[in-house]
Amino acid sequence: MKFTIKKELLLDALNKVSKAISTKNLIPVLAGIKFELKKNKLTLTASDNDITIQTSIETANEVDFKVESEGSIIIQGKYILDIVRKLPDKFINIEVVDELKILIYTENSEFNLNGISESEYPNIGLDESKKKIVLNASVFKNIVNQTAFASSTEESKPILTGINFNIVGDILECNSTDSYRLARKVVKLDKSSEDNYNIVIPSHNILEFSRIITDDESDVELHIFNNKILFKNNNLKFESRLINGTYPNTSNLLPDDALLVVSTKLNDFYNVIDRVSILTSDKEKNVVTLETKGNTLILRSSSAEIGRVEEKMPITKSSEEDIKISFSAKYMMEALKSFSTETVDINFVGEVKPILIKSSEDETLTQLVLPIRTY
Amino acid sequence: MKFTIKKELLLDALNKVSKAISTKNLIPVLAGIKFELKKNKLTLTASDNDITIQTSIETANEVDFKVESEGSIIIQGKYILDIVRKLPDKFINIEVVDELKILIYTENSEFNLNGISESEYPNIGLDESKKKIVLNASVFKNIVNQTAFASSTEESKPILTGINFNIVGDILECNSTDSYRLARKVVKLDKSSEDNYNIVIPSHNILEFSRIITDDESDVELHIFNNKILFKNNNLKFESRLINGTYPNTSNLLPDDALLVVSTKLNDFYNVIDRVSILTSDKEKNVVTLETKGNTLILRSSSAEIGRVEEKMPITKSSEEDIKISFSAKYMMEALKSFSTETVDINFVGEVKPILIKSSEDETLTQLVLPIRTY
Repeated sequence: MKFTIKKELLLDALNKVSKAISTKNLIPVLAGIKFELKKNKLTLTASDNDITIQTSIETANEVDFKVESEGSIIIQGKYILDIVRKLPDKFINIEVVDELKILIYTENSEFNLNGISESEYPNIGLDESKKKIVLNASVFKNIVNQTAFASSTEESKPILTGINFNIVGDILECNSTDSYRLARKVVKLDKSSEDNYNIVIPSHNILEFSRIITDDESDVELHIFNNKILFKNNNLKFESRLINGTYPNTSNLLPDDALLVVSTKLNDFYNVIDRVSILTSDKEKNVVTLETKGNTLILRSSSAEIGRVEEKMPITKSSEEDIKISFSAKYMMEALKSFSTETVDINFVGEVKPILIKSSEDETLTQLVLPIRTY
Repeated sequence: MKFTIKKELLLDALNKVSKAISTKNLIPVLAGIKFELKKNKLTLTASDNDITIQTSIETANEVDFKVESEGSIIIQGKYILDIVRKLPDKFINIEVVDELKILIYTENSEFNLNGISESEYPNIGLDESKKKIVLNASVFKNIVNQTAFASSTEESKPILTGINFNIVGDILECNSTDSYRLARKVVKLDKSSEDNYNIVIPSHNILEFSRIITDDESDVELHIFNNKILFKNNNLKFESRLINGTYPNTSNLLPDDALLVVSTKLNDFYNVIDRVSILTSDKEKNVVTLETKGNTLILRSSSAEIGRVEEKMPITKSSEEDIKISFSAKYMMEALKSFSTETVDINFVGEVKPILIKSSEDETLTQLVLPIRTY
């Protein structure tokens, strides 16, 4: 293997695949990145057994990427990334010598790294499905950003550490819950799916993939299998395992009729809750109490040791009803942050019923926060 | 106590004193900030027993700061800072009611905090000396930034966790060493000191003070006592304990005559060491080897497991001598970072002798790094 490549091209590819480099080092070969050079295409693969990332560089332009000979080898991921990042040169030469030695050199720098034979790398399929689902990248990123935060981080509830993707016809419904709050996003697909799917994708993995996508105009393809999913975006492939089990049915949590809908400016409401929560503590779930009195919203919190706070703000109400209800400021703020609208509608059904946050400006998103009984 | 104040004025003062709020909470009153309002002057004090910070707000402008009644109270530091920071209003009202309740209110927000009686606050002197030493703030900040990093962080060597300030006549010499490297800065005072001083100031504390100084044109006053030092900067007072003991004499470490002086561009030399150290590990002190061959500098490092690297760069030499020497890349890079000059001169006396880093562009600063024997 011998080639010369423009630094920026290689660095961009390395940055992407290195997200899958195993840091646990249980299997040494997984701390490496597999370099495969065939014809005019360099393919880089990294995997930590949970996710696999593969990308390729291919160019007809012999200035940016000039191949002298083909070959494959595994290079230690941490070092190759650091080296390429820190080299000041515009072009970098990479060459395998003595079978398992990798030379990385420029005019004044010469690195000589120990490699591992490609034959030791696990077999990785990265299979594609004929029945792929296609989404616009910015829509996909929105789904992830608006739902993943509501997943559980407790490994004792594995099924709740993922996002539920439910596909029926041309409707994709995504749910994420840690059993205290729920995020739901419903998206209409451009093309109906042949099959129905009901899968759970680890939130941590889908977030990682979502962060790698740079081109918002591109397509994201979902290739769904029994126990794994392959995401494709341009020349990037990202595979994740799926979480086994049945995702809880959350539809019955979402009440149809609200007793009272409070409409408010998103930022103002967020900031009021932020201030009222100053006196609360994480340990006690940052409980704040909300009360309506006519067209005024009153938010309060108190702590015997520290003191108490009361904030007021004007609101628009859907009915003459008033409500007094307590909830976690942290969960409410995270739910509010998922909206990019100017206003939100807070739907109340009763003091012990879930609070729904919606916006007439974006009807694809629903956030739910459970109340907390304080008496 | 009752007053109305412009938010920015109070926030700025709170940000400064809150650096001294005790987070250990061993003495509850030290988690608070003492508010003292007398005539038209509000004085804020915080202390964690190691450092004490005091600042005051005084204005003849009744719009920015309007006093209605005098008084003193201790307010929990963490909360008052968060509240003032997050209130959106331009002006904030603060009032003590029922002796120990503090009201902090604006149009739509009302916080009611539990206070502590001023009488419970420890007696804090913040004495000034008639024989103060005066430095320009930017000179003072340079001293701290160019020396503090070389101090030890090991509490087993308390004397080395500070910066040695040695004042004789109009010369201030500052030394900082962890016994593997040494930073020395020599500054000429505008006015000779009446007394000689040889003190050790905890590096952590002097760094904290240095970061609070915002006005580079202002003066920093040093008021030195037996076991403490008071820094004054505009209306800010910052007191730190001194470290007891005799600072080691480091003068004999600095050789007079170099066998070889290598002159190089600071940034290029820094980047070469940075790259060569990629293959080294913290555990093994990031050892790299430097060799001169004519007007070429060669830097190398190697690791049996990872591989090896060699970098070359052109240099100017003071003599025909050549050298081969090994040192910690981390320490050399930190020493280089303390210079803001374009070029540096690396002085070699011998393979097992200290390496001196100087610059003809700034003769007030000397950095020393000990070599490491690799054979």
